[in-house]
Amino acid sequence: MASLRALMPALANKTYFNYGGQGPLPTPSLEAITASWGRIQELGPFTTAVWPFIEQEVARVRRSLAAACGVGAHRISLTENVTSGCVLPLWGLPWQPGDELLIGDCEHPGVVAACQELARREQLTIKPLAVQQRCRSTPQAQLPEAALAAVEQALTPRSRLVVLSHLLWNTGAVMPIAAVAQLLQGHPRQPWLLVDAAQSMGSLPVAEAAATADIYAFTGHKWCCGPEGLGGVAVSERLLEQAQPTLIGWRSLAHEGSAASSFHRDGRRFEVATSCLPLCSGLATSLNLLEAEGTAEQRLARIQAGSARLWRGLQGIPGVQTLLPEPPPAGLVSFSLEGRSTAAVVNQLGEQGIWIRRLDDPDCLRACTHITTTDDEIDLLLEALSALN
Amino acid sequence: MASLRALMPALANKTYFNYGGQGPLPTPSLEAITASWGRIQELGPFTTAVWPFIEQEVARVRRSLAAACGVGAHRISLTENVTSGCVLPLWGLPWQPGDELLIGDCEHPGVVAACQELARREQLTIKPLAVQQRCRSTPQAQLPEAALAAVEQALTPRSRLVVLSHLLWNTGAVMPIAAVAQLLQGHPRQPWLLVDAAQSMGSLPVAEAAATADIYAFTGHKWCCGPEGLGGVAVSERLLEQAQPTLIGWRSLAHEGSAASSFHRDGRRFEVATSCLPLCSGLATSLNLLEAEGTAEQRLARIQAGSARLWRGLQGIPGVQTLLPEPPPAGLVSFSLEGRSTAAVVNQLGEQGIWIRRLDDPDCLRACTHITTTDDEIDLLLEALSALN
Repeated sequence: MASLRALMPALANKTYFNYGGQGPLPTPSLEAITASWGRIQELGPFTTAVWPFIEQEVARVRRSLAAACGVGAHRISLTENVTSGCVLPLWGLPWQPGDELLIGDCEHPGVVAACQELARREQLTIKPLAVQQRCRSTPQAQLPEAALAAVEQALTPRSRLVVLSHLLWNTGAVMPIAAVAQLLQGHPRQPWLLVDAAQSMGSLPVAEAAATADIYAFTGHKWCCGPEGLGGVAVSERLLEQAQPTLIGWRSLAHEGSAASSFHRDGRRFEVATSCLPLCSGLATSLNLLEAEGTAEQRLARIQAGSARLWRGLQGIPGVQTLLPEPPPAGLVSFSLEGRSTAAVVNQLGEQGIWIRRLDDPDCLRACTHITTTDDEIDLLLEALSALN
Repeated sequence: MASLRALMPALANKTYFNYGGQGPLPTPSLEAITASWGRIQELGPFTTAVWPFIEQEVARVRRSLAAACGVGAHRISLTENVTSGCVLPLWGLPWQPGDELLIGDCEHPGVVAACQELARREQLTIKPLAVQQRCRSTPQAQLPEAALAAVEQALTPRSRLVVLSHLLWNTGAVMPIAAVAQLLQGHPRQPWLLVDAAQSMGSLPVAEAAATADIYAFTGHKWCCGPEGLGGVAVSERLLEQAQPTLIGWRSLAHEGSAASSFHRDGRRFEVATSCLPLCSGLATSLNLLEAEGTAEQRLARIQAGSARLWRGLQGIPGVQTLLPEPPPAGLVSFSLEGRSTAAVVNQLGEQGIWIRRLDDPDCLRACTHITTTDDEIDLLLEALSALN
């Protein structure tokens, strides 16, 4: 643990709890990015000599991400961010007017706004899927069943898509993605399952969920501690068959030199055009560094140890209300502080070099613990929160 | 000239003519990128303390690009690449079945394929706009008139969009964008004008064209010599009013915390979500370095001096046929070599450390001269081509 932490300059001068916003970039990852740029300039930038290097770096990060997702590399599309991964495969699906989109009430505003625009243009209907209150009132052991029941109750014969995050960015609860996928397979219309994996990738073992969802979209710059600007999406085999690409460029085309070309049949179908190749080298390095810290299960246990320590400490501070009724299943710890503006609390802590964030819906504070978080940091945050009173 | 060239490691070990594929990255730009990452880690990566730095770097590159385009900064959307800039604003326009898209026959396959898919979904019709033969047979002085006549002849009462590059990537001819824009304004349906500026931005003065087109999409990584993965698009005021965003994320939303938010009314409307901020610092640095070399007009004169030297030299090599009948108006010099496979020629030259590329349509070779190109390099290429015979 000490080793990875020591490689992160961002953690040297502050007490950091915003991994769910952006993870610190380890120095070896930045060095890999810079080295990649150097190599591109040495061999290229646009020469026959540089293509093997570029292909190798793209393949390396695609393989790493595929391994984490438990899918073949052909099911991974590289994207600029989570939103692109969520939304790009959606636009080219064969929608029919009246199709219903079932959207969880803890989804990120970006994805929701994109679905609203899709619904407007394709004459689809959006229906809410209420999970937030269930998260906040159901003990962890019963939550999978409760969340599944929420989906089951909201489904109608017209349901065509379910949108649900794996790890909810506001409450910090984990959704039973594989069970939802199984439920949807039994539905007469077999609705597609879109999973926002912004918070789960790099913090939870994701293979089971990623392999069963139709669209499992993630980013490298949060819990994976890669550079900003590179993420991806694991898409199902049926989605690769059913969805046409929308933002089409040379990378989408099987023969990039011809507009008459068919689209790639694999994940490259949803890739677009030139992107920042050195970011692939950086993310691959960050993924290696994480893997060196243990399996996904071992890392989650460490993340949980930290979030549990924080959650328990919060119970002892007057006026603090945690969103979850039990220690969190992952690294997101959300809470409110009675009678205090969340924005003001963020600023007051920030002045002390302690960084958490606030969310709009519900209006709350959120602190994240990663495998690099120390007990001392958690205790410092708890003390600072206590001192506000 | 020597100064910028000396700052480009890519030019130190090869004879490089692929600026139209990707420009060399100057060392100060890479240093600016690395420093930007360092600063983000020092202040953030996700803290109240880092937002002013990020806003400053985004604003700086947006202002530079807006100045080059001769438009207000509110008309610039930052994108990952040219294709995104071309295509993103298209999808959300108010299309009607039967609308006609007039697409130049020298357009890049990526943009054409995207328009084909748009046409399929919205039941639009694609009509060809023949400019290639005119470029190859018309003297430069008469080309604007000839190209304009081609557009005029192809227009019908159903025309709704014209797609035309500013500087054609295959023939190297310049299209009279401002005159086409004026022509379209007089058409009863006032078709939108989409301009692929992949080859013009950083090589030609673009302000007049960029300010009159509806969509003027460019990249920073070709003639601007910025990092790969960052480009932009200048959009017209009417496009900002008429087009809804499609790939929607937190950056598209006026209030990023709420899905009920309206979209930004300015260029951020077509921006999506997290991208690689340090690339902004790198591109801004590259643009500054270019500006230090002279005005856009002065730089074009230097580019033309090189391409004219190359074009003239090519006339003396048996079997060489240049695509243009006169020295090129910019830095793209395309030609064929009778009886030789273009792919084989690229490889043979590459073995000598001389890098040009081939194109599919028409099957030809292309060498680019930039302000960093020396007469010695041009002469070396000419000698190597002569020696093939």
